[in-house]
Amino acid sequence: MFKGSIRTSALRSSIDALLAVVDEARFNLTPTGVSVRAVDAANVAMVSLELPDSAFDAYSVDKEVTIGLDLSKFIDLLKMGNPDSICEMDLQDSSRLKIKMGSLKYSISLLEPSTIKREPKIPEIELPGEVILRGSDFRQGIKASEPIGDYLVVGIETKPKEIFIMETEGDVDRVTLELDKDDLFSISVVGEDAVRSMFSIEYLKEISKVTSAADEVKLKIGKDFPIDISFAVGDASVRYLLAPRIEAD
Amino acid sequence: MFKGSIRTSALRSSIDALLAVVDEARFNLTPTGVSVRAVDAANVAMVSLELPDSAFDAYSVDKEVTIGLDLSKFIDLLKMGNPDSICEMDLQDSSRLKIKMGSLKYSISLLEPSTIKREPKIPEIELPGEVILRGSDFRQGIKASEPIGDYLVVGIETKPKEIFIMETEGDVDRVTLELDKDDLFSISVVGEDAVRSMFSIEYLKEISKVTSAADEVKLKIGKDFPIDISFAVGDASVRYLLAPRIEAD
Amino acid sequence: MFKGSIRTSALRSSIDALLAVVDEARFNLTPTGVSVRAVDAANVAMVSLELPDSAFDAYSVDKEVTIGLDLSKFIDLLKMGNPDSICEMDLQDSSRLKIKMGSLKYSISLLEPSTIKREPKIPEIELPGEVILRGSDFRQGIKASEPIGDYLVVGIETKPKEIFIMETEGDVDRVTLELDKDDLFSISVVGEDAVRSMFSIEYLKEISKVTSAADEVKLKIGKDFPIDISFAVGDASVRYLLAPRIEAD
Repeated sequence: MFKGSIRTSALRSSIDALLAVVDEARFNLTPTGVSVRAVDAANVAMVSLELPDSAFDAYSVDKEVTIGLDLSKFIDLLKMGNPDSICEMDLQDSSRLKIKMGSLKYSISLLEPSTIKREPKIPEIELPGEVILRGSDFRQGIKASEPIGDYLVVGIETKPKEIFIMETEGDVDRVTLELDKDDLFSISVVGEDAVRSMFSIEYLKEISKVTSAADEVKLKIGKDFPIDISFAVGDASVRYLLAPRIEAD
Repeated sequence: MFKGSIRTSALRSSIDALLAVVDEARFNLTPTGVSVRAVDAANVAMVSLELPDSAFDAYSVDKEVTIGLDLSKFIDLLKMGNPDSICEMDLQDSSRLKIKMGSLKYSISLLEPSTIKREPKIPEIELPGEVILRGSDFRQGIKASEPIGDYLVVGIETKPKEIFIMETEGDVDRVTLELDKDDLFSISVVGEDAVRSMFSIEYLKEISKVTSAADEVKLKIGKDFPIDISFAVGDASVRYLLAPRIEAD
Repeated sequence: MFKGSIRTSALRSSIDALLAVVDEARFNLTPTGVSVRAVDAANVAMVSLELPDSAFDAYSVDKEVTIGLDLSKFIDLLKMGNPDSICEMDLQDSSRLKIKMGSLKYSISLLEPSTIKREPKIPEIELPGEVILRGSDFRQGIKASEPIGDYLVVGIETKPKEIFIMETEGDVDRVTLELDKDDLFSISVVGEDAVRSMFSIEYLKEISKVTSAADEVKLKIGKDFPIDISFAVGDASVRYLLAPRIEAD
């Protein structure tokens, strides 16, 4: 049904990206690549992963198939292989996957896809603000907020100039990370209005751990709208959509 | 009221030095520098910190003021900045401090100084013994004692020659660290008698973690008297005074 | 009774090897060296250590003696010394050992040897299979098994060619490490039959942590027989004998 070879470290990064949101997921194996879309139990965070056949050293799917993976177990096994090894996968029926990393061979049972939370539709939303920044800066803004409060505002100020802000207000303390265009790869807003939305730090924390190693992370921001966070790992692309918490006035 | 800029790592070292003894403290901001004096809840250990204006890149106090700081919270925030960054502080009223490290800005509420345990007077005591040693050697003597017992004797033997000793006796085991003048920067005793006092390892452990990175630590020792432990971090100077536990014969 | 000097790091490695199986042990000090033999409380794993006088910088025993050591306490003390220091030991009576590492001196009470579980006889067994492999490969095979199950099969396949295998089957998953003679220092079986025995991963885990740093580890394997695991640390030699768990068919 499916055979593929990919660098163990690249596969680990992809699985880690999914684990920021869910513990198990359906993988759609098609002739052009692997795609995953999953939403957390609370319907707050969505993740999608596109792993095109070009991300693999070898890739073949003779019949489209969907498999269910326990991501925690899978990452534990991948950690046993040398990160620089090639991970060879062989799926002969949809209930069992064979994995080979160097001298190490695993044969693991898969989850019945129908038992896994259904794939979400990606909502079509227009987000007027866009910022591209270093993964490490995004991470710093979130870490710096953790001692202060539970919610983080992400936004773009437009006057007097465009500034990207991450801000948390606790009961008595406040923290702000401000980055202007000199600190960013790019910043833009459609229209002249500032945009800002508020999110749970808990979710952003997990996501920013994954993106912290990325050279570039793209954020799309609206006014009290979901945030769209995307980045690439080699040929793979990962995207998160996180629902806002509406700010009380 | 106060504005100052200092390397973030230097400020962190100073706060860490206070945290060995207390969790909150009063900071006296004067035109010539910052001074802190605090005693732990059990009145066993005292710490004083002198951070002269020369320790700062920029420093100005237009009106002397005392502020109260939650040290645990403050150190958490300082850890969010790059250690090599400059930490800019701005105090406009005595209830709120603004901190800027690179792109990161905090605004934190201060403690009402009157709610913090009162500053101790530094007792005037004459301690006849004095040793200057590497912070790492002091740390080793204390760590080595931890598996053996709860109390540590610090002293100077004078016969046949001057030797610095740190000694712990447990129920059945004993450990001694002996350093003679070849292993020390200096050793001296006023008079010919040996000096020794016994201390709780719990306190010394916290203090020695702070001093472990110091090139030189100065100890002043008496007979069943407090120990005076002092060291410098750049332009800052830190001093601990720890009450002895009287040895039962 | 006994005086000896040895590099602190070498002594630590030897004690760590024993700690994989027991917490206390009898040390036989003879004119030609130190030997230890111990079996765990469940009589599943045996360890023997031979530390010949050549492993010491200085060594003298004027009267053979057996001492009892609390290994956990002893390793804690050895960790306090610089690994590159020389550990000088001095035993004047069988109840107290003096240890000196640099400026640090310990005097510790010993255990009464009669209170320690009796030394096992090493059973005489002929094991037809023998493999010499890197300690790190042995460790990888065991670590990789931990997420899958509790028991590990160690064996040598003979057809079509000699392959060393480590295999664990859980309820639904399976992992196999296969190494052929290109990946091994040597592999051999007396006769043409495959050999395999099954062991508790819990024991192998502790043992493989100790052997993971060894360049070469020798395994002797039979059919449902104990496994004999041996390696050298400098002049010291360590050997484990681990009882099999009989596979249910």
